[in-house]
Amino acid sequence: MRWSAYFLKTMKDNPKDAKVVSHRLMLRAGMIRQMSAGLYTWLPLGLRVLKKIEGIVREEQDRAGFHEVLMPTIQSADLWYESGRYDAYGPEMLRIKDRHEADLLYGPTNEEVITDIFRREVQSYKDLPLNLYHVQWKFRDEVRPRFGLMRGREFLMKDGYSFDIDEAAAKNMYQRVLVSYLRTFKRFGVTAIPMRADTGPIGGDLSHEFLIQADTGESDIFFDTKIADLGAFSEEDQHPARLYDAINNLYARTDETHDSQLFEQVPAERRVISKGIEVGHIFNFGTKYSVPMGALVQNANGEKVPVHMGSYGIGVSRIAAALIEASHDDAGIVWPEEVAPFDVGILMLKPDDQRCKEVVNNLCSALEDTGRTVLVDDRNERPGAKFADMDLIGLPWQIIIGPRGLDNDLVELKYRKTGAKSEVSLDQVIATIAS
Amino acid sequence: MRWSAYFLKTMKDNPKDAKVVSHRLMLRAGMIRQMSAGLYTWLPLGLRVLKKIEGIVREEQDRAGFHEVLMPTIQSADLWYESGRYDAYGPEMLRIKDRHEADLLYGPTNEEVITDIFRREVQSYKDLPLNLYHVQWKFRDEVRPRFGLMRGREFLMKDGYSFDIDEAAAKNMYQRVLVSYLRTFKRFGVTAIPMRADTGPIGGDLSHEFLIQADTGESDIFFDTKIADLGAFSEEDQHPARLYDAINNLYARTDETHDSQLFEQVPAERRVISKGIEVGHIFNFGTKYSVPMGALVQNANGEKVPVHMGSYGIGVSRIAAALIEASHDDAGIVWPEEVAPFDVGILMLKPDDQRCKEVVNNLCSALEDTGRTVLVDDRNERPGAKFADMDLIGLPWQIIIGPRGLDNDLVELKYRKTGAKSEVSLDQVIATIAS
Repeated sequence: MRWSAYFLKTMKDNPKDAKVVSHRLMLRAGMIRQMSAGLYTWLPLGLRVLKKIEGIVREEQDRAGFHEVLMPTIQSADLWYESGRYDAYGPEMLRIKDRHEADLLYGPTNEEVITDIFRREVQSYKDLPLNLYHVQWKFRDEVRPRFGLMRGREFLMKDGYSFDIDEAAAKNMYQRVLVSYLRTFKRFGVTAIPMRADTGPIGGDLSHEFLIQADTGESDIFFDTKIADLGAFSEEDQHPARLYDAINNLYARTDETHDSQLFEQVPAERRVISKGIEVGHIFNFGTKYSVPMGALVQNANGEKVPVHMGSYGIGVSRIAAALIEASHDDAGIVWPEEVAPFDVGILMLKPDDQRCKEVVNNLCSALEDTGRTVLVDDRNERPGAKFADMDLIGLPWQIIIGPRGLDNDLVELKYRKTGAKSEVSLDQVIATIAS
Repeated sequence: MRWSAYFLKTMKDNPKDAKVVSHRLMLRAGMIRQMSAGLYTWLPLGLRVLKKIEGIVREEQDRAGFHEVLMPTIQSADLWYESGRYDAYGPEMLRIKDRHEADLLYGPTNEEVITDIFRREVQSYKDLPLNLYHVQWKFRDEVRPRFGLMRGREFLMKDGYSFDIDEAAAKNMYQRVLVSYLRTFKRFGVTAIPMRADTGPIGGDLSHEFLIQADTGESDIFFDTKIADLGAFSEEDQHPARLYDAINNLYARTDETHDSQLFEQVPAERRVISKGIEVGHIFNFGTKYSVPMGALVQNANGEKVPVHMGSYGIGVSRIAAALIEASHDDAGIVWPEEVAPFDVGILMLKPDDQRCKEVVNNLCSALEDTGRTVLVDDRNERPGAKFADMDLIGLPWQIIIGPRGLDNDLVELKYRKTGAKSEVSLDQVIATIAS
C-alpha cells in the first residue's frame, strides 16, 4: 500500500481530551476517530488491527471446538423477561422502544438469545456437548464514556456459550476454555493473567477475569508471580484440568475480590501489586438460564434435565487499546507482530528518485511474495516527519531508502521494538525480515 | 466438517409462517432462526454463506479503489440535525434515547457520519479522489417485518462513499461504481440489472437500483432484454463511461419510475415484464451533505469549494435470500458455486463401515488439498433423509458412498444444479470436482 493513496492522517500533537496513552496514540496514529461520546469510527489502519485481533480470536475459538453463529445486535426484551434480567440489569443496558412501542434493547450480552436457540434446536444429550460463539458489536451505556476504547459505549466482543449435560462436564469445559484463553492472549504477544472474579449480572458461582498487566490499567491487581509464568505455558505440555488446578492454587485477584490476609501467605518476593486491563471474562453459571427458560434435554436415562451452561467473553476492540497500553514508547506504538497493521514500513526519503522507485517496487514484490504486508511512505514530506510518523504507527520493521545508500547498494533496516538499526544490502533485508 | 459434530438442524416440513421461498428454505436448511419480528440469528451454515458474500463484496470494493473503514451502528442525532435529515427521515429510523436523554439512532445509512469524518481529515483537492466504504449492520424499523431476510429489520449492508472535487469527477466515479457493481453481482452467478431509480431520502438527481430477476421479487420490473446481456459483459472489453452510456440508453425501470409510453418504444420482442429483488442502490447527490455540513476543500485555484459526493449500497444479507429466490428447485437450494457454504457434500450411507470411513477420510484430505471445503454427512440417519437434506442445503457437488459401490471401487457423483449423476472411480471424483 502506498501512503499517498491511503487514507491515513496522523497527528503531530497530543489531542487534549485524550487522557490515556492508548486513546492518544490511536487518535494520533489515525486508527480511530470519535463520532460522539463513546462512539468511534475505525479508520483503515485501525480496522486492519481490529480484524487481525478478531481473526486470532476466531481461530482459537474454532480450535477449541466452538461453532460460529451470529446473533443480532438488537434483542427483543421478551427473552429478558423470561430470564428475569430485564429489570435487574442496570442503566448500562440501552433500552429502546420500536415504532410499535415494543421493548427492544441493544444486547450487552447474549445468554438469553443463545438459550432460546438451544431450547428450540436441541432436545437430547446426544447433541451435547455443544459450544457456540459469535463476534458482534455490543453496547454499554456508560454514564461517563472516556479513555477512548477503554471505556467506550459500542464495542466488539467475542462471546461464547457452552452447553453440557451436567455440572462435571460443564466444569471441564470451563477449564478447557480457560486454557484456550491463555493460548489466545499469548498469540497477541502478552500475558493475560486469569484472576478469580465476581460474577455480577451474568450470575453463577465460578468466574475468572483475564487481565493484561499495564501501568495505566484501571484495575488494581495483586498476584503471585508464579501465575504469570504459567500464563506463558506451552499448552501441549499440560492437561487442562492440571493447569487449571495449578492456576487456581496461586493467588491472583483484582481489587474487587482482593483478600489481604490470603495475599500475605504468598512469599514476599513473589507478591506483585500492579495495575491491569480486563480483556476477557468467563463464567460457569450452571442452570441459571436453562431453568427459567426451560432449556431441557433428555439425559441417557430418558429424564428431562436443565442443560448446564457457561459463557466466555473476549473484548476484541478493547484488546487493540490494551495492547497499546502494554506496548508503546515515547515515539509511539510498538505493535506485537501478530496484530501489526502492516509488517513492514518502507520510508522513501526521495520519493521522486527513479532508482528509489524501482528498488522499492522490487522490494515490495519480494516482501509480499514471502507473505509480508508493506506500507510505503511515498509522501512528499521531509524525512523527519516520515521517521516520526513511522515510529508513531509502530510497524515492526522499517526500511529506510535514500539515493545515498543506494549508491552503495545499501538500505537502512530498523527494528521498531528495540530501535536497533543496521545498514544492509537489499538481499539481506529480505532474509532478515523473512526469518 | 462432520455433520454429526456440526450445529446444523434441518426441518423436513415447511414452517407455516414463512411465505416466501427464501425464508422457507433458509429456515428448513438450518441457516437462520428468528429471534423476534424481523430479527434473525445466523446459524453456522448460513453464516458461511453470509461471509462468502461479504468477502466478494469486499474484494470488489478494494479493486474499485475504496478504502475500508468501520463506523459504529449507533449514531448521534447531532450530525443529522446538521444535515436536516433527523426530522425528515421516516419512522423506519430507530430513534433511541440514552441514559442522559440524548438522542441517538441506529444508523439506517451513513452519509452524515462519513461527511463528518471527511471534513475533519481532508482540506485539499490533493487528497481527492477519496473513496471509503464499510460493511456494517443497519436497522430499519419496518412497520410489518416479513418474508424473512427480504424485509427484516436488522440487516448487513455495504455502503460506500465517494468524494470528488467537482461534478464531472463525481459523475465519472458514479459510472465506475456502476460497472464495478455489475462485476460484483456477476460473481454471485446472477445478473443484477441496473434501473433508473428515485433518490428518496438519500437525495440527489441521479440514482440506479440493481435488481435480480426472480418470479418472487417484490418489485415489478420492465426492461429491454439487451440490458441483461450488457449485465453479463466482460469488463475488460469496456470503458466504464461507454458501458454506462450504453446502459443508460436502454429501457430498464421498476414500477416506481415506469413510463409505459417510453417502454412501448422498445421493440416488442425485446420487452420484458417481470419481477425483481433490489440488491443494490447507488446515488450521486453532489453537494447535498457537504454544503450544510461544511465539508469544503481547497481547489487548485486556492478556493474553498464543497466536495461532491455519491453513495453506493449493497444489501449483503439480502443477497443471501435473493440468490435463493433466483436459484432453487422443489428439493431445496441450488447454491451458485462462489457462495456455497461448502463445495462438496459427502453422504456416508453406512457411517459405521470401516472401509467407508477410510475412503471418506482420504477423499476429504484430497479435496481439501485442492482448496475445496467438504461437509460429510456421517449421521445415523436413513439414506432417504440424507439425500433429502443434502439436496435441501444445496451444495454444488454430492458424493454418495456406500459399501456396495466400494466393492467395485465406485462412488456416485451428483451435480446438484442439473441433478446429473454418474458412477465414477475415486480418482475421477477428484479430477471432476477440481476441474
